[in-house]
Amino acid sequence: MTDARLIIAASEADANLYYACGFLAPDPFVFVEARGRTLLLMSDLEVDRARAQARVDEVRAYAAYEGKARQRWPEPRVADVVALLLEELGVAEVRVPANFPLEHADRLRERGVRVAAQADPFFPERVVKRAEEIAAIGETQRHTEAALAAALDVLRASDVRGADVYWQGRPLTAEELRRIVNVSLMERACVAEHTIIACGLDGVDPHHEGTGPIRANQSIVFDIFPRSSRTRYYADMTRTVVKGRAPDALRRMYDAVLAAQRRGIELVRDGASGQAIHAEVARTLERRRFETAVVNGRHQGFFHGTGHGVGLDVHEPPRIGKVDHVLRAGQVVTVEPGLYYPEWGAVRIEDMVVVEAEGCRNLTAFPKDTLLEL
Amino acid sequence: MTDARLIIAASEADANLYYACGFLAPDPFVFVEARGRTLLLMSDLEVDRARAQARVDEVRAYAAYEGKARQRWPEPRVADVVALLLEELGVAEVRVPANFPLEHADRLRERGVRVAAQADPFFPERVVKRAEEIAAIGETQRHTEAALAAALDVLRASDVRGADVYWQGRPLTAEELRRIVNVSLMERACVAEHTIIACGLDGVDPHHEGTGPIRANQSIVFDIFPRSSRTRYYADMTRTVVKGRAPDALRRMYDAVLAAQRRGIELVRDGASGQAIHAEVARTLERRRFETAVVNGRHQGFFHGTGHGVGLDVHEPPRIGKVDHVLRAGQVVTVEPGLYYPEWGAVRIEDMVVVEAEGCRNLTAFPKDTLLEL
Repeated sequence: MTDARLIIAASEADANLYYACGFLAPDPFVFVEARGRTLLLMSDLEVDRARAQARVDEVRAYAAYEGKARQRWPEPRVADVVALLLEELGVAEVRVPANFPLEHADRLRERGVRVAAQADPFFPERVVKRAEEIAAIGETQRHTEAALAAALDVLRASDVRGADVYWQGRPLTAEELRRIVNVSLMERACVAEHTIIACGLDGVDPHHEGTGPIRANQSIVFDIFPRSSRTRYYADMTRTVVKGRAPDALRRMYDAVLAAQRRGIELVRDGASGQAIHAEVARTLERRRFETAVVNGRHQGFFHGTGHGVGLDVHEPPRIGKVDHVLRAGQVVTVEPGLYYPEWGAVRIEDMVVVEAEGCRNLTAFPKDTLLEL
Repeated sequence: MTDARLIIAASEADANLYYACGFLAPDPFVFVEARGRTLLLMSDLEVDRARAQARVDEVRAYAAYEGKARQRWPEPRVADVVALLLEELGVAEVRVPANFPLEHADRLRERGVRVAAQADPFFPERVVKRAEEIAAIGETQRHTEAALAAALDVLRASDVRGADVYWQGRPLTAEELRRIVNVSLMERACVAEHTIIACGLDGVDPHHEGTGPIRANQSIVFDIFPRSSRTRYYADMTRTVVKGRAPDALRRMYDAVLAAQRRGIELVRDGASGQAIHAEVARTLERRRFETAVVNGRHQGFFHGTGHGVGLDVHEPPRIGKVDHVLRAGQVVTVEPGLYYPEWGAVRIEDMVVVEAEGCRNLTAFPKDTLLEL
């Protein structure tokens, strides 16, 4: 397989490209790595900034190659311009990320370039975090905890009136709590968008963001996963709380999920099988008689993976789930079992941990020991 | 060409897929349109929520097809599962978006499916906005204007001390102004990330976000382009102001950019050529003796396009620039010429307009008549 790598993407939307060059831009540009040298091809709009900011050996002007391409073809496309550059570099074959745009690949092949999609991870070293990457993830996590604390302060200051929850004289809503979490994060230069604040039945759908009034004595799932605008690294944490008093069933669910989550964390270490951890987490829930099934056409119990890698993407390799990935020291992964039942509500508890040789280090400091009743 | 369409993407990151099904999810899923019927293939985690929320004819369980695929191949990949679905639907040939992942395309082709990448726009109707889409863009724009007003209030309340600007006893920075803009937007459920607040030399690089202290008597470019979390539609606006007094050269630049921008807006109408508008905008600047060139290896003058479409993506077709696109009624485009000179600073003025039969309607209400000196 060739050593030459090619990416064509917008680095604001493509973590591999940002990882490769450390340069953020909103529109697609070209990255080539050949014979150990890295090169960007940039539009007039970005070329000077790229020369100042990008971590690559060389930045060349797209316009210059576009001019040359026009001498050969009437209306050259991006891939034509790239084909010309590769020809000049003596590169006949490139590896590209799995998500490389088909339009460019087909055109490069028409121009005689051999293009091979590489399965993720494109940069295997991206999966194992360096110390400064772990520090960045930890910093985003501190901001995440501050944001959750701000929301719980509001819940604490709210009043229960029957089944309803009032704050500052009005019914407290999921939207209001989401605003408080997201604004708190933005104050800290972290961007959160689909923050989940899902009360009662909303939470029973694990990715439902949550809408409308918060209800007393029901589960409220907070799943918060912002990205730092400064470092670009994500964090990811979930906590489940109740405003008022938790019904017994919910408390039993919480204890089971906490036991399963702790069991999962116990098993995380260099060389551990993600599949085996997931199976043991699921068994821990089953042993406490929480069953997973499709009932009346809806999934209930524990029907998602146990965890995933976190870094420049919020979901990245490795997975702790049905597909087997082997964990390696330096990876940052979530451990986040959950239980979801239409009659009782939802519980999910999620920490982020760093895989180490003999175990793991928890990056999450937010308490979880008992079901918080606020 | 086949009528069947296929998308495999995460709709939070892929506007075509969100446009196709109106369903937001963070991980990739499968959309198929065949014989006028639309269908999603969803993981266990998302299938129930998709059935409740997605605007499609049918939602099927990925797991069911994965099970069938496993009977045929030992470790089926996503594309294998999709190949099986397409076979069942009697679809042998699909059109996919230009950005369709090469890994899936190559695998589908191995399985005998004919896959053709379609150049953008994948959904031609996405380029022309419906009334409710224009209303959504206009609403995001109102929030954008409120956020800029909040930042200008801070500039107004700041003190000039020599070349420096102080606010609440400390030097005012680009980071602080960006926080104010982005938090103000988040309060309104709009997400802004790379907001440009670029003073003096920073602004001379059009995509430099701006860092460090704000200086008196220098250009400050505010380029704000948030997305509404509620509607998913973007807005995009740029204004240039000065804290203190503008030097004459900067005032002349402002007048030239304003004249060029107004000339551009004047020419926007159904059937107009984007290339012709861009050329006329550039000529307006040249006639006022503002020249575009590479000086000492750096671009200066006017060296980016005049505008771009805005919608579910912040940059989408059509373009008003060197490549010719014909404008059509119902498109929403920016008109944003700028001038950039290391000696004088930067000026850019950007409005969003809706293309109409006989001209255009400006969605931007924020004043621009004179260079604001605050």
